[in-house]
Amino acid sequence: MPELRRDPVVGFWTIISTERSRRPIEVKPKEMTEERRCPFCEGRESETTQEIYAIRNPESRPDGIGWQVRVIKSKLPILSVDSEFDRFGRGMYDLMQGVGTHEIIIESPRHKHSLDELNVEEIKLVIQAYAQRLNELAKDPRFKYALLFKNHGLISGAARDVVRHTRSQLIATPVTPKRVKEELVSAKNYFDRRERCVFCDILRQESDDGSRVVSQNKTFFSFCPFASRAPFEIWILPKKHCADFGKLAYEDTADLAALLKACLVKLRLILDDPPYNMILHTAPYRHKKKEGYWKTIDEDYHWRFQISPRLSHDAGFEWGTGIYINPTPPEDAALLLRETVI
Amino acid sequence: MPELRRDPVVGFWTIISTERSRRPIEVKPKEMTEERRCPFCEGRESETTQEIYAIRNPESRPDGIGWQVRVIKSKLPILSVDSEFDRFGRGMYDLMQGVGTHEIIIESPRHKHSLDELNVEEIKLVIQAYAQRLNELAKDPRFKYALLFKNHGLISGAARDVVRHTRSQLIATPVTPKRVKEELVSAKNYFDRRERCVFCDILRQESDDGSRVVSQNKTFFSFCPFASRAPFEIWILPKKHCADFGKLAYEDTADLAALLKACLVKLRLILDDPPYNMILHTAPYRHKKKEGYWKTIDEDYHWRFQISPRLSHDAGFEWGTGIYINPTPPEDAALLLRETVI
Repeated sequence: MPELRRDPVVGFWTIISTERSRRPIEVKPKEMTEERRCPFCEGRESETTQEIYAIRNPESRPDGIGWQVRVIKSKLPILSVDSEFDRFGRGMYDLMQGVGTHEIIIESPRHKHSLDELNVEEIKLVIQAYAQRLNELAKDPRFKYALLFKNHGLISGAARDVVRHTRSQLIATPVTPKRVKEELVSAKNYFDRRERCVFCDILRQESDDGSRVVSQNKTFFSFCPFASRAPFEIWILPKKHCADFGKLAYEDTADLAALLKACLVKLRLILDDPPYNMILHTAPYRHKKKEGYWKTIDEDYHWRFQISPRLSHDAGFEWGTGIYINPTPPEDAALLLRETVI
Repeated sequence: MPELRRDPVVGFWTIISTERSRRPIEVKPKEMTEERRCPFCEGRESETTQEIYAIRNPESRPDGIGWQVRVIKSKLPILSVDSEFDRFGRGMYDLMQGVGTHEIIIESPRHKHSLDELNVEEIKLVIQAYAQRLNELAKDPRFKYALLFKNHGLISGAARDVVRHTRSQLIATPVTPKRVKEELVSAKNYFDRRERCVFCDILRQESDDGSRVVSQNKTFFSFCPFASRAPFEIWILPKKHCADFGKLAYEDTADLAALLKACLVKLRLILDDPPYNMILHTAPYRHKKKEGYWKTIDEDYHWRFQISPRLSHDAGFEWGTGIYINPTPPEDAALLLRETVI
């Protein structure tokens, strides 16, 4: 059973999850699984855990062929939905059972290595699956947040990432993670002072300035953020204020799919298929309408995708200070990204 | 000139430092420099930048042979002491000149790859050099903090870490880094509520419990923290409360050197010379006696070394949430470390 432990000094949580490690130490990734044995490809549904959700052809059946996007439970879940929700103390320490869920969103029935190899129609379906799962997990009152993310390439992935089949992950947690809370509180404080959303203000300044813009269309805007922690970091935001990704209108998915594909293809061309993390920042679950601290969140928060190429590793300075060193000014990165024709 | 840029949402700082990159992208470490060409070895002092400080034989001269520990300026400094200290705004964004300093502490005149290959007498000198430099930089009123750290092994180091000669780094910053401030504020809040140092409380609980203890002697205590973010993470603390590493008594350096060596040798034996980061957490500089928020820091903070093996990389989940997943319970790690005879 995974265990969440709270650091007694600063209050971050760590998940102690021995289920994810047969041996105490697992350092080196193993050889890639061959395509012909990839369990995520269409036709090998029986080799995965049971299907939770899929976008399927009308005639097809769960755990059979005939799907476009398929969602399954992780075989090595970081958190488990079967746990009791139990918090307790041990001396001065706080801990809780690792209740949560860990889903894998398989983005294509074919053996594609990366999301940007799919066409816009296919990426639209992936985005719809993201929204469906996020909205579905919102119904479980034990979950405070769900993080949707993608680890592309070995460097950014776990040691166990031996199957190269494009997919995202969705992990629901019984706590609002520290880093999420920090951002929510900061956005709220900004709004309280100015009665404006900080992200809307950023969008306006980036649009006026232009030097960090990557690409945009009618509905979405992408740019390299002013204080980018990673070279070629990109944010994608809806132009119209909205706190919840789950509220994405169906008619806007095509624009989002097109911009997401454009950004990823540009990164691939410039950086030669770099490893990257993609993270969705969206509002936490509010189980009671207008719950407590987050009651103004619809006004003060604004969802976004963050894409961070991982060209180097965090080392002692970053760990000790939280200050990142970025050798590529975002203005230089954005210029290259803008000028790359796809 | 490096530039510090403040994230407008959460307020972290990023250093945009183009000096550290001849090309915009530098992904793969180059081949190791051969031992016979290592610029950090005794006899090649002319190949490095000028010496700032050294522990030397009485007869020897700066930038010549005859030293045990030698401190030089980084050739590729992250921050530079020659900058004007200037803060300004650009629209809604805040930035400042990258004033600071970046020193390299060469820990041995011989071509040793790691600190634990040195004997206790030699490590004592390294610790004395750490304290001397930290205390020296405290005199510059532009510096708010100095981080002493060590990146051992390629994974945790920068792409440019091509010379395998044991050394640490010291970077002074014109801001109190977010992660440091967070810890200081948390320790202060704990003290305000209980009139006790949180670290002293942790030491007492760990000593009573025993299951996470690694090793100890008269003056210092080492253990795997309850919410370890990395497998085999180790903290080393002075048993007697003290906020400033710079106040380390000369007679205590031997005990610290012995415990530091023991911890590092044990890690090497169990994990086969793992890459690791070592970070010194110590009080920030207070230029006016009893300065502002930090006026109670001597009572509420407690310095420590943190050693974190880097067996995997942060991926999307860690970045998005700040929650780390650790497959090795610290109790298991500590048991292995305790039982490893050196």
